[in-house]
Amino acid sequence: MTYCVSMNLDAGLVFLSDSRTNAGVDHINTFRKMSIFERPGERVMVLMSSGNLAITQQVVSVLKEAMLAQDGRESLWSAPNMFEAARHVGEILREVYRRDSEAFRNFGIDFAAALILGGQIGQEQPRLFHIYAAGNFIEATPDTPYFQIGESKYGKPIIDRVVNRHTSLDEAAKLALISMDSTIRSNLSVGVPLDLAIIRTDELKVSTRLSIDSSNAYFQMIRSRWSASLRDAFDALPNPDWQDKGEIL
Amino acid sequence: MTYCVSMNLDAGLVFLSDSRTNAGVDHINTFRKMSIFERPGERVMVLMSSGNLAITQQVVSVLKEAMLAQDGRESLWSAPNMFEAARHVGEILREVYRRDSEAFRNFGIDFAAALILGGQIGQEQPRLFHIYAAGNFIEATPDTPYFQIGESKYGKPIIDRVVNRHTSLDEAAKLALISMDSTIRSNLSVGVPLDLAIIRTDELKVSTRLSIDSSNAYFQMIRSRWSASLRDAFDALPNPDWQDKGEIL
Repeated sequence: MTYCVSMNLDAGLVFLSDSRTNAGVDHINTFRKMSIFERPGERVMVLMSSGNLAITQQVVSVLKEAMLAQDGRESLWSAPNMFEAARHVGEILREVYRRDSEAFRNFGIDFAAALILGGQIGQEQPRLFHIYAAGNFIEATPDTPYFQIGESKYGKPIIDRVVNRHTSLDEAAKLALISMDSTIRSNLSVGVPLDLAIIRTDELKVSTRLSIDSSNAYFQMIRSRWSASLRDAFDALPNPDWQDKGEIL
Repeated sequence: MTYCVSMNLDAGLVFLSDSRTNAGVDHINTFRKMSIFERPGERVMVLMSSGNLAITQQVVSVLKEAMLAQDGRESLWSAPNMFEAARHVGEILREVYRRDSEAFRNFGIDFAAALILGGQIGQEQPRLFHIYAAGNFIEATPDTPYFQIGESKYGKPIIDRVVNRHTSLDEAAKLALISMDSTIRSNLSVGVPLDLAIIRTDELKVSTRLSIDSSNAYFQMIRSRWSASLRDAFDALPNPDWQDKGEIL
């Protein structure tokens, strides 16, 4: 599996992805799930993917082919805004579906893919999209400023409790790493190294880009101190004392 | 969906279940998912269920029929130990499968069911089992002293960080409620009222049994203080300062 999370905040966008892929439990590999497309000063986009790696790698390859082609075809470089960029990625996904779905059906393989695309083009505000296997997509809003793909449930509660549009980028990076830590602890199919990218609003480039493995000092600190903090918070809450409350049925 | 969690500790067993059932999002009802079978001083068992309600209600009804029958047939009252009790529940599940699976297939319905059975019979130590739809089952051990069924992922990280065999029953009840709170916050298909049952080792009866709804003072305290504690723990961790660390790629 995979776990990727992204947040769209007033201050910009934060992206975090793991890098573990598995087919069953005995075929585990490391593949990066984050791609960055950047023309500094003009546009910047980050794409993260989960699902069938053969599908998502094709999508990225076809996207890159289109960007390299000099024949005037539509590409992420020509998209006038992020909505059109998301639509373009969805179309590429549908192209892969047309090519592969029959063979997938013959082998009983699900056409499973989910993508997160976020970025900023020119004067437009940064935008964030969740693109489904069918090529349709939804956009993050102030009410729901984040998206997750892959093994999303373990790391969701802490995000639900903390994030809002005013969260700073540093806090959001911390939050994403805590959410990732909770996921990694409870699910073997998600693992380091992690890719982190931060886009500050109106910088029109990737402001921070990191590869984080288990030796990263900040992530190590998060891992040990978050665990200890949760333990302390747990211990600090009083135990129930049902007998005194007459609540026994 | 459903969320049920149970822990088998040195001090005894703790069970917690929600009570929401849904077929889609527009057919939401309240059904209790916990059944208690008790002959004080001789044996005590708690059964929790998730999955297709038509299956799990049948299982409970057939179990009760067998317990009421005076014809010497096998039942939870006659099981000589918890392993045989789990095997009996698994057999009943298979009986339901034989009766219903063809009709389910005709309508494209999954035969989805998962059960947790725990308790103590006579001199034997308390034991806890997770029974699958196929009627097979696994038992909790000191390494993995807890089981979850239903929407288990949201509430798993906090349990993984806290529980071990030496956790007290009061702490375990607190932990189960925190895990439930995280699940309820992130998943609409899980909801109050909750059923909580505690069996103290060698008491051979349900020691504590509570129905907890949103007006319960202790659960209200858990909900508000745990959220605040997480927020505080989050704020207390330093933000990343990547620039200083020269970690930008």
